[in-house]
Parts: sequence; structure tokens; C-alpha cells
Amino acid sequence: MPSPDQIRAAVLRYLAAVAGGSASEIAACYAPDATVEDPAGSEPHRGRAAIAQFYSPLEAAARETKLLTLRIAGGAAVFHFLVRTKLPDQTVDVEPIDLMTFDSRGLITSMRAFWSESDVRVT
Amino acid sequence: MPSPDQIRAAVLRYLAAVAGGSASEIAACYAPDATVEDPAGSEPHRGRAAIAQFYSPLEAAARETKLLTLRIAGGAAVFHFLVRTKLPDQTVDVEPIDLMTFDSRGLITSMRAFWSESDVRVT
Repeated sequence: MPSPDQIRAAVLRYLAAVAGGSASEIAACYAPDATVEDPAGSEPHRGRAAIAQFYSPLEAAARETKLLTLRIAGGAAVFHFLVRTKLPDQTVDVEPIDLMTFDSRGLITSMRAFWSESDVRVT
Repeated sequence: MPSPDQIRAAVLRYLAAVAGGSASEIAACYAPDATVEDPAGSEPHRGRAAIAQFYSPLEAAARETKLLTLRIAGGAAVFHFLVRTKLPDQTVDVEPIDLMTFDSRGLITSMRAFWSESDVRVT
């Protein structure tokens, strides 16, 4: 089981990749056979290729992320954060709470993102 | 699957019970065969009798709860909240993030509480 420090570092690496990385750099935060369920309840994306595909629309936009609250227990992280996506004519803010599990190297093995349409702010 | 409104009501009912209810009133927010894993990674308490036993120490203290952030997706709730326990000579604040699933009646079928010692404030 990864240590709390490893998990914290893995969450910060992920948020930095979502803010400034390519889709494949974001996918590299995940273990090869990881799953991404975003939003929770939707069909999971499985494996790095599918995960990179899922994140690829982000590449067209300027992005910011900000960690708001992080809790670590039982080898998992749950964290509330802001993702701001800046498009030419609008800014889209979402503040999900994500649940992530990790392998012993600190790679994400599963992610479930809890948010819904009512949590999206467009300005 | 319970509706988002049912889930929101169930979370508020739980937080009200933790603030002002007996251990058995808190346990009544759970389905008969529910599990409670608090903190996440610990051995789960299973069934209402074990769950009431788990909450029974709360009965000796004055308590407050405050919902900070709630996200609902895929029939589950994830929420960040404050539990303040007022003892004669000190106040203990914990702000966990809980993950809960529900049955079709809005009873909690599982709870996992994400927090660690470093998230506890004693004043």
C-alpha cells in the first residue's frame, strides 16, 4: 500500500498534469490497466489508451486546477478540487470530489469523479 | 437507484442524527445489513446493531455537524462535513469526507469515512 506522502504526491502530480499536461501525460499518472469512471455511475474507461482518449478534449483549452480539500485513508485519496477550463468566450468551472486508489508505485489504479451538471458553473 | 433529492435528504437526515440523535437513531439511517468503514481501511462494522455500538460513544458528548460540500453521482454521495464534539474541557473537530451508497428507500447501504489523525483538531 502506498504511503500517505506517496498518495499526496500522486494527487498533486495528477492535478498538475490536468492543468498543464498533454492527454498522454495525464494518462501516465495512471497504472496501465487503470479505470476512470467520470462521472461516477458512467461506463468506465479502462487502460491508458482509453484514458488518454478521454482526456484529449482538454488539450484544446487553457486549464487551471486547485486542490481544495484532500483526505487520505486506507490507501485511497478523496479530494475536492477546482478544474477551470478557459475557452475563447467562456470559462467553465467544475469542483468535483474524486476518489482514487493507487498501486505501490503511486500510480492511480482507479478514479471515480463525483459531480453532476448542477455542479458546473459557466461564466 | 435513489434520486439525487432522496440522497440529499438521506445525507441531511444522517448529519442531523449524528448531531442530535441516539446511537440507535443514527443506526436507523442505515439499511439493516449496511456496512460502516470508519476510517476507510479499517475493519467494517456490519449490521444495525454493530453500527449502533460504533456510534454509542457519541451519546456522552454534545455534538454539532455542518455540511460543507456534497456531490451526488451514480447513486452515491460524497460529502465533506464538520463533526464538532464538545467535551467538558475540550472541543474536537474532525472534517472527514464520507462516501455513502443507498438503497431505493434512501437508507445508507455503505459508508466509508476518509480522514486520519492529522485531520483532527483539538482546542
